[in-house]
Amino acid sequence: MWYNEDQDEHIISIGARTSIRVTKKLYEKQSNFQKIEIYQTDAFGKMMVLDNCIMLTDANEFAYHEMIAHVPLFAHPNPERVLIIGGGDGGTAREVLRHPQVKECVMVEIDEEVVNVSREYFPAIAAELDNPRLDLRIEDGMAYIRNNENAFDVILIDSTDPVGIAENLITVKFYEETHRSLKKGGIMVAQAESPFYFADIQRKLFQNIKGAFPAVSMYLSQIPFYPSGTWSFAFATQEAGFDRTNYRVADLKAMEHQLQYFNEALFTGCFAIPTFAKKMIE
Amino acid sequence: MWYNEDQDEHIISIGARTSIRVTKKLYEKQSNFQKIEIYQTDAFGKMMVLDNCIMLTDANEFAYHEMIAHVPLFAHPNPERVLIIGGGDGGTAREVLRHPQVKECVMVEIDEEVVNVSREYFPAIAAELDNPRLDLRIEDGMAYIRNNENAFDVILIDSTDPVGIAENLITVKFYEETHRSLKKGGIMVAQAESPFYFADIQRKLFQNIKGAFPAVSMYLSQIPFYPSGTWSFAFATQEAGFDRTNYRVADLKAMEHQLQYFNEALFTGCFAIPTFAKKMIE
Repeated sequence: MWYNEDQDEHIISIGARTSIRVTKKLYEKQSNFQKIEIYQTDAFGKMMVLDNCIMLTDANEFAYHEMIAHVPLFAHPNPERVLIIGGGDGGTAREVLRHPQVKECVMVEIDEEVVNVSREYFPAIAAELDNPRLDLRIEDGMAYIRNNENAFDVILIDSTDPVGIAENLITVKFYEETHRSLKKGGIMVAQAESPFYFADIQRKLFQNIKGAFPAVSMYLSQIPFYPSGTWSFAFATQEAGFDRTNYRVADLKAMEHQLQYFNEALFTGCFAIPTFAKKMIE
Repeated sequence: MWYNEDQDEHIISIGARTSIRVTKKLYEKQSNFQKIEIYQTDAFGKMMVLDNCIMLTDANEFAYHEMIAHVPLFAHPNPERVLIIGGGDGGTAREVLRHPQVKECVMVEIDEEVVNVSREYFPAIAAELDNPRLDLRIEDGMAYIRNNENAFDVILIDSTDPVGIAENLITVKFYEETHRSLKKGGIMVAQAESPFYFADIQRKLFQNIKGAFPAVSMYLSQIPFYPSGTWSFAFATQEAGFDRTNYRVADLKAMEHQLQYFNEALFTGCFAIPTFAKKMIE
């Protein structure tokens, strides 16, 4: 039995879909915000699907969570306060909390059901949700950011696709508020869709970030369960002259053995993007 | 109507598949070697399928062809003679022949039908098949390599998956013959499957190359129509001390405007591979 992403208009429109062979549907619920499904897969452990889009599998979730978190966290000289918008499964928080520099990680998830199902079905991903350094809040991330100026060293936008509930998360207004919520020298990273299949969304997203931040680059991760298998992240800095090549090398070397994906070579390597993607965001 | 890769045992076994929305089947024939199908897709131009595996689409073929060809061709100080094993569609030859240094490119394809359908259905990919610098031969690549010692600066193994007809192309014996067919200082690049989904084939392929070559590395390209969306290449050098960071920078800068994918940052960036893939081939 195949789970096909073709129930989703956003996916159908691109003319390509990913399917994962599943043995059983373990859970389905319409929360206040979205349809949540959990499947047992043949080859990739359990899989979470939100509004008909594959969000993660046990086997390969590291490719997303390590890359959204560690690139900005190692680029920042001292990331003491980190904010995650979304990220209800807990995977991004787990990676953030590997950094001993992080004194507090605030995670603002709008949909409590995602947190609950992750605790139940994805214990390895939700592993740090009870960490005392984590402040987990069930509320609207946009409102939270508006009310917390000059508060964070790193902000991670770990949202679903910017259609439906997450659409407001790619507006200039939201990025301006995010910029104000960063401390001096801070970094925002946002998941930024596939350069192969979502060029229109991606152009808009990068243009809008440029409207609010003095500098933004794109980096890539390979994530097999997302459309096209290549996923991008927008890396935006609160100050124009930020030097991301001056990352915390010694700390990264000390953590590498814990990680399955990220390593020192990727620190520069992930910013080497194909020419067609570079042109798209120019 | 969706074209699903689930007719192929090799694909089914991984528990994930890619599907492409198609409007029409334009061609189907069982050649002496494989089943060849051509589809009109919704979003990606025409698509070629060999033995139920998606080989290429018009829209994104550049991601494969540029990356198999230009990484070794720019790494070699003077690639005058190039051999392609397979590559019947002509895309790899088209990229090789962009290099004015190449005096002769020999392309040895076992299945003439692939060449014929590419000429008919993929004229932009087959564009250089009549270039006078191309020596196109319809014969067995293994026999050709055996009979041509010390003959090539760069050899590209542009084969189908190493199951069925292409299985012999990942043996130590074949790699030894390839090594002998290279001139001093030469480079072999072979398409080497997905690190996410074909770990077993990949381990064997890299182990066997190590049995015949003094040095081998892996580099990656993002290819949305291949399983997992991430594809690897084995980069093996005839001599142990080959310095691939000493690539032809000026020539690369002069060609970049012609290319859609490869650029100078990717020359090192594509060799920055995730930790799990690095461990797999150690």
